Amino acid sequence: MDGQYLPMSEAKVSVLDWGFLHSDATYDTVHVWEGRFFRLDLHLNRFFRGIEKLRMKLPYNRSEIERILSTCVLLSGHKSAYVEMICTRGGSPTFSRDPREAENRFIAFAVPFGSVANKEQLERGLHVAISDTVRIPPRSIDPTIKNYHWLDLIKGLFEAYDQGAETALIVDINDNVAEGPGFNVFMVKDGLLQTPANGVLPGITRQTVFDLCSELGLSASASDFNRAELKGADEVFITSTAGGIMSVTKIDDTVIGDGRVGAVTRQLTDLYWTKHADPAWSTPVKGE
Amino acid sequence: MDGQYLPMSEAKVSVLDWGFLHSDATYDTVHVWEGRFFRLDLHLNRFFRGIEKLRMKLPYNRSEIERILSTCVLLSGHKSAYVEMICTRGGSPTFSRDPREAENRFIAFAVPFGSVANKEQLERGLHVAISDTVRIPPRSIDPTIKNYHWLDLIKGLFEAYDQGAETALIVDINDNVAEGPGFNVFMVKDGLLQTPANGVLPGITRQTVFDLCSELGLSASASDFNRAELKGADEVFITSTAGGIMSVTKIDDTVIGDGRVGAVTRQLTDLYWTKHADPAWSTPVKGE
Repeated sequence: MDGQYLPMSEAKVSVLDWGFLHSDATYDTVHVWEGRFFRLDLHLNRFFRGIEKLRMKLPYNRSEIERILSTCVLLSGHKSAYVEMICTRGGSPTFSRDPREAENRFIAFAVPFGSVANKEQLERGLHVAISDTVRIPPRSIDPTIKNYHWLDLIKGLFEAYDQGAETALIVDINDNVAEGPGFNVFMVKDGLLQTPANGVLPGITRQTVFDLCSELGLSASASDFNRAELKGADEVFITSTAGGIMSVTKIDDTVIGDGRVGAVTRQLTDLYWTKHADPAWSTPVKGE
Repeated sequence: MDGQYLPMSEAKVSVLDWGFLHSDATYDTVHVWEGRFFRLDLHLNRFFRGIEKLRMKLPYNRSEIERILSTCVLLSGHKSAYVEMICTRGGSPTFSRDPREAENRFIAFAVPFGSVANKEQLERGLHVAISDTVRIPPRSIDPTIKNYHWLDLIKGLFEAYDQGAETALIVDINDNVAEGPGFNVFMVKDGLLQTPANGVLPGITRQTVFDLCSELGLSASASDFNRAELKGADEVFITSTAGGIMSVTKIDDTVIGDGRVGAVTRQLTDLYWTKHADPAWSTPVKGE
């Protein structure tokens, strides 16, 4: 940050940065697996689109950002990492409330690769609860701008914990299933895949599932579904940069399918990880 | 922060604090006018309620917080100040994604008193534009928890600037007027005051207007109104800790009333500032 590389313990943002005080920021997270970024181009595209929509300006161009991200990973020493890039509104030296007067700031960091599901959960499938909390609607905040407005997701998460579940799904304004804290959701029914169309983050792993389906000859569509339809699915999985494709085997009190990781989920997961070494899908972390 | 008093330039929060990365935080802002906090009790009540609703725990009790806020003001040297207290989810030493494992943190700071409207705007009334952006609805985030989810308000603000206005109002999900970036709104029509009831922050200055109306024998109610009703008002004003009661004399292209600060607005504003020296409404900033 601010042109310096620091240990994570020293990476701090001013309390007066609007990125903190108004969550006036956008970000993206790409992961590195065995020394290679996965689909970095797609993450950078989304990040730059979000910055433009928020009317911010970065002090670095695309290739400079790529170099900074690589340097973060190399300095961290992690072979597999979770790499976050952030653009905040910044602050105004005069305490002005006018966002046009703020100096936008760029921050990037690399931490160890993390997953929504731990190893045991990946093998047996996650237990998810559906909350009545409504995801912030697109008329309030454009979900294609990846943002830190998570209080709805966090409320859902606490409600899920109260029910003994491991993570949460929240709904959209029509009471259809939307997404969870940091992930999209897919259902498989009679061989067809489906993921919510509206009011959700257009996740890169979600996009990747569509791409993998094309390659495997599977049919996938973006269209909304309700709780009952989700619980009646043959297979359910969630998708996130933090963990990839992760099976869900229980929703509220309903066991999904036969209660084990399904065949389609397994096929997609295997191909997903194979792609991490494919130069068409991944790029090496490079030194200066 | 962290038990230390620092110059503002050194007040920084960890990039990994969920208060930054997920805007998982609540806050409150009280102001000090000529050495006295204004309605500190009401601000502390709201702050503590928000913390409880977010299932956070503060490392300090109420009287300790009062002492910290006073110390911030005294060390800052400001006679009139804008004093913010923040509770963030904090971070987890293990990068856990589980908010229950985070250590909640308290931050407080004092900066010079700021206002939504500058001196000239206070005298002639603000020019406001109404945006189509919808305030994050209560089914997504409980507006009684004062929060930093401002991207909807900031979008409205940029749209207002595009139209040559000075600040913005955004709407609720039913297209009624909601609130603006950091303020509530009131209209006066035929001697009756009205402010939106639903989906808005229960502002302390908004509450203060109700209290002042009682004292002045004015009738005020919380009930929703649409754009046309607002534009047809005799007087319009906004309320915020950052500036108090501030007249609005133009909305979009419509001049409100006779285009000057109205009599009711002026009467309320005068009484509002008189109350700042009243021990029933204010408390002195105290040394240790």
